[in-house]
Amino acid sequence: MKLRGYTVPRTPEGRSSLVPYPPWHYIGAFLVIDYWADPGRTVAFLPDGIDPHPDPGRCAFVAADWQSCSEGGDELVDPSRSQYKEVFVVCSGLLDGEEVTVCSYIWVDRDFALTRGWIQGFPKKLGSIWITRSFGLGGPADPGMAPGARFGATCAAYERRVAQATVTLEHPSRGGPFHNAPPIVNVRHFPRLEAGRHDAPAVHELVRAVSRDRAVSEVWEGSATLELFGAPHEEIDALAPVRIGRGYRFSFAYTVDDLETVRELGA
Amino acid sequence: MKLRGYTVPRTPEGRSSLVPYPPWHYIGAFLVIDYWADPGRTVAFLPDGIDPHPDPGRCAFVAADWQSCSEGGDELVDPSRSQYKEVFVVCSGLLDGEEVTVCSYIWVDRDFALTRGWIQGFPKKLGSIWITRSFGLGGPADPGMAPGARFGATCAAYERRVAQATVTLEHPSRGGPFHNAPPIVNVRHFPRLEAGRHDAPAVHELVRAVSRDRAVSEVWEGSATLELFGAPHEEIDALAPVRIGRGYRFSFAYTVDDLETVRELGA
Amino acid sequence: MKLRGYTVPRTPEGRSSLVPYPPWHYIGAFLVIDYWADPGRTVAFLPDGIDPHPDPGRCAFVAADWQSCSEGGDELVDPSRSQYKEVFVVCSGLLDGEEVTVCSYIWVDRDFALTRGWIQGFPKKLGSIWITRSFGLGGPADPGMAPGARFGATCAAYERRVAQATVTLEHPSRGGPFHNAPPIVNVRHFPRLEAGRHDAPAVHELVRAVSRDRAVSEVWEGSATLELFGAPHEEIDALAPVRIGRGYRFSFAYTVDDLETVRELGA
Amino acid sequence: MKLRGYTVPRTPEGRSSLVPYPPWHYIGAFLVIDYWADPGRTVAFLPDGIDPHPDPGRCAFVAADWQSCSEGGDELVDPSRSQYKEVFVVCSGLLDGEEVTVCSYIWVDRDFALTRGWIQGFPKKLGSIWITRSFGLGGPADPGMAPGARFGATCAAYERRVAQATVTLEHPSRGGPFHNAPPIVNVRHFPRLEAGRHDAPAVHELVRAVSRDRAVSEVWEGSATLELFGAPHEEIDALAPVRIGRGYRFSFAYTVDDLETVRELGA
Repeated sequence: MKLRGYTVPRTPEGRSSLVPYPPWHYIGAFLVIDYWADPGRTVAFLPDGIDPHPDPGRCAFVAADWQSCSEGGDELVDPSRSQYKEVFVVCSGLLDGEEVTVCSYIWVDRDFALTRGWIQGFPKKLGSIWITRSFGLGGPADPGMAPGARFGATCAAYERRVAQATVTLEHPSRGGPFHNAPPIVNVRHFPRLEAGRHDAPAVHELVRAVSRDRAVSEVWEGSATLELFGAPHEEIDALAPVRIGRGYRFSFAYTVDDLETVRELGA
Repeated sequence: MKLRGYTVPRTPEGRSSLVPYPPWHYIGAFLVIDYWADPGRTVAFLPDGIDPHPDPGRCAFVAADWQSCSEGGDELVDPSRSQYKEVFVVCSGLLDGEEVTVCSYIWVDRDFALTRGWIQGFPKKLGSIWITRSFGLGGPADPGMAPGARFGATCAAYERRVAQATVTLEHPSRGGPFHNAPPIVNVRHFPRLEAGRHDAPAVHELVRAVSRDRAVSEVWEGSATLELFGAPHEEIDALAPVRIGRGYRFSFAYTVDDLETVRELGA
Repeated sequence: MKLRGYTVPRTPEGRSSLVPYPPWHYIGAFLVIDYWADPGRTVAFLPDGIDPHPDPGRCAFVAADWQSCSEGGDELVDPSRSQYKEVFVVCSGLLDGEEVTVCSYIWVDRDFALTRGWIQGFPKKLGSIWITRSFGLGGPADPGMAPGARFGATCAAYERRVAQATVTLEHPSRGGPFHNAPPIVNVRHFPRLEAGRHDAPAVHELVRAVSRDRAVSEVWEGSATLELFGAPHEEIDALAPVRIGRGYRFSFAYTVDDLETVRELGA
Repeated sequence: MKLRGYTVPRTPEGRSSLVPYPPWHYIGAFLVIDYWADPGRTVAFLPDGIDPHPDPGRCAFVAADWQSCSEGGDELVDPSRSQYKEVFVVCSGLLDGEEVTVCSYIWVDRDFALTRGWIQGFPKKLGSIWITRSFGLGGPADPGMAPGARFGATCAAYERRVAQATVTLEHPSRGGPFHNAPPIVNVRHFPRLEAGRHDAPAVHELVRAVSRDRAVSEVWEGSATLELFGAPHEEIDALAPVRIGRGYRFSFAYTVDDLETVRELGA
């Protein structure tokens, strides 16, 4: 096979792939909100192989402001190839009795991150995402990590705002966030386009994220607001909050090499 | 299987898929340039299963300003879901002795079109694409379809211009464009992320595009210019022109329902 | 004065100006909707010097898909410098007893068009605008200019949809659109930043648009829908329709050399 | 005067202005490179009223990743209204014998920041800007503030890369950066569009930036690279480096209330 590269476009030299070979190293600033959606609607988002969680409707909203690179880190000094933002919702469930989360909806603002997400089973669409930043210097434009500091996140897709959230910090957290803490289980899916087989995906498997070298900053927590809006082509309003828990702010880093296939889901 | 939709995100109601089920109906305004790249470098871009074309280095550059929809056409009145632009290069080759073209490089500016392209084997990345338009009304800002009318196309990706082209119309064309006329054969490819199997793609197959209801406007032709630029993460300069043929301007419509798998390419 | 150019950045060679010297030549595809907003709220948008129109609340919504250039037309073959889309609302009024329109709100998607608009008194903000296109070839993705053809326009700004409209064509129009037909009168405004004089703008004058070489295609008309949405930082909902007239589709071209100052508005 | 707001669009309630009234509070992460351009070409960029600097060709390149707000700070939790990035070059000169800098070229990626810049005399165009970030947590994707940490910045405008720079940190700086330290003097300029008076700008004045509540983090310095590229519509290559000094990384905050008019520049 003479064409090279981990993803398309595969080329003679193999340096054009939209996503380079793993490992992929990540670091990001996070805004997380523990919340509960309507239990019945939440269960309906769980893929085959995932059972309902005993805490009905348990979800988390996550907004992340990322920087990432492959081995060697060359993308870091050409930062349009390393930075992206994303907003997602995870629903809680059980895999063979173990607590897991499932990423049901996710928007991201760069193509390499969209594709790298598909490869890991994250059902990414493109969106436009903004997240308040802290600079550690103080003053009226820098919320900082301190009581009363306010952070916001918004996500728009196809010219509509689909999510908006705020977190107002109160104090360092003891153990949170909780709702997105269990391992993520995703559905890797790639369609088939043969005549008569449009409902027999070429790839359809439950996978479990694996990572290493996880690091986290001090976590602050506080009160939160969250709104999720629907559209003719979006069902995220089905996961809108019926009760909102605490909001959190922190930084987080990790590395991904590969993942585990849990089971084939079939057609 | 309770989650529905042709692509992720797959949801209870199935109306959130980034790409809806086919058929997909397309119409677009095209700028095409017949040209020749370095023969050796062009051959190196042909995938397994495709033999070199007897006219060495034969390529075409295409810039297309598209509007598309699925059955029912609802996307047409929410046009951020139906419009996109793309720039691509096809290299000529032979499949079992029959003339075909292979799409070696392609940029597109919308997520639904990127993903719909991947499903059809187009190795799409996101780019920013601009193409001169004709409005049929005349005046200094409307090139029109007339002798001397000038059209340009540019493509940028990751903050660099990667392609720029111009066509200056002379007269209606007798039969062109020629280099992109044979059927397109693509490589559908979706990576695997299991440990130790990163070079064993989950999907890797040669596919042949199938379409129906093709319509084309009158085609005009004229002189052309074309430049393709490289970058550390782009090899499109390997397909830069060594000789430029004629340029063409026209509109084109078609419908895609599915495709034919020609052969499995394996790991 | 050694620095040259019509606008900043002014440079030694004068070829860097965001907006080059006039004349500016324009051509565009238009979607226009004649409508009426709440009369009292509409009058509140009229600047000093403009009296209420005898038809209370008379407004027009306009979505335009433009291509423009300066003398010589070099921007046309580098089309990121010539194409843009905009959405705006004009309110009707009287200037010394003569019917005029005032552009109260306008979004545009490119910097050169934003600045060129400010120079002409259009109160432009950046937005993301999409407008259904017609290609003249037919088929399911091409609405065409024919009975039943549906066109849509959307505008988003700061991550929210602020306007959406549709027009369904019925037949060629006899004389429409009407509400945006009178000449446009704008307020040219440029703020002052001296201490204590923030409310004494450096430029504040009523100006009247002047143009030449106007051309228009056949106009089609039909039924229309229109929604205008507010936000903490947008008051366009104050001009939302209470009654919707007819919608129109056509192409239009003109040239602008300069404008007339009607009167100084002062602090 | 019944319409309200600091800038257009001016409206009945005055909450729609693209730029709200000052004060404006800023905080940002900076990458600065002290360098020298060709002396003759640099002098040609100085506006009337500014004499050449005794250190010929002295310039600075600045890339800034900003968050800003007006009084009250509401934009901070709707962060698309508070965040932007910009890249600029300042040339050194003398104003009445005192060292100053002049901003000769600047790109920014948001409309409110473009307009707020024009009001202060910054000759802003829109661009697409990326700047490596530090997260303070460490790991392969976080350069950190440490010896060997690499930062990059790129700027593209109209589909071309116009600037790229890198800084590799070595140690905390003793006093730098130096080339952008003197006060900025800008030219506030707003064109006239009356017939025959296109070269008699409505506003044309030398202004001096005033600020308060300046704060700066620890500054690190190291080696730097810098490239500035031209285009038919860009002269930034005239300010390309002939010698590169040190590069710097730090955070900076300040507040702007107004500015001082130094002199009228006339037609």
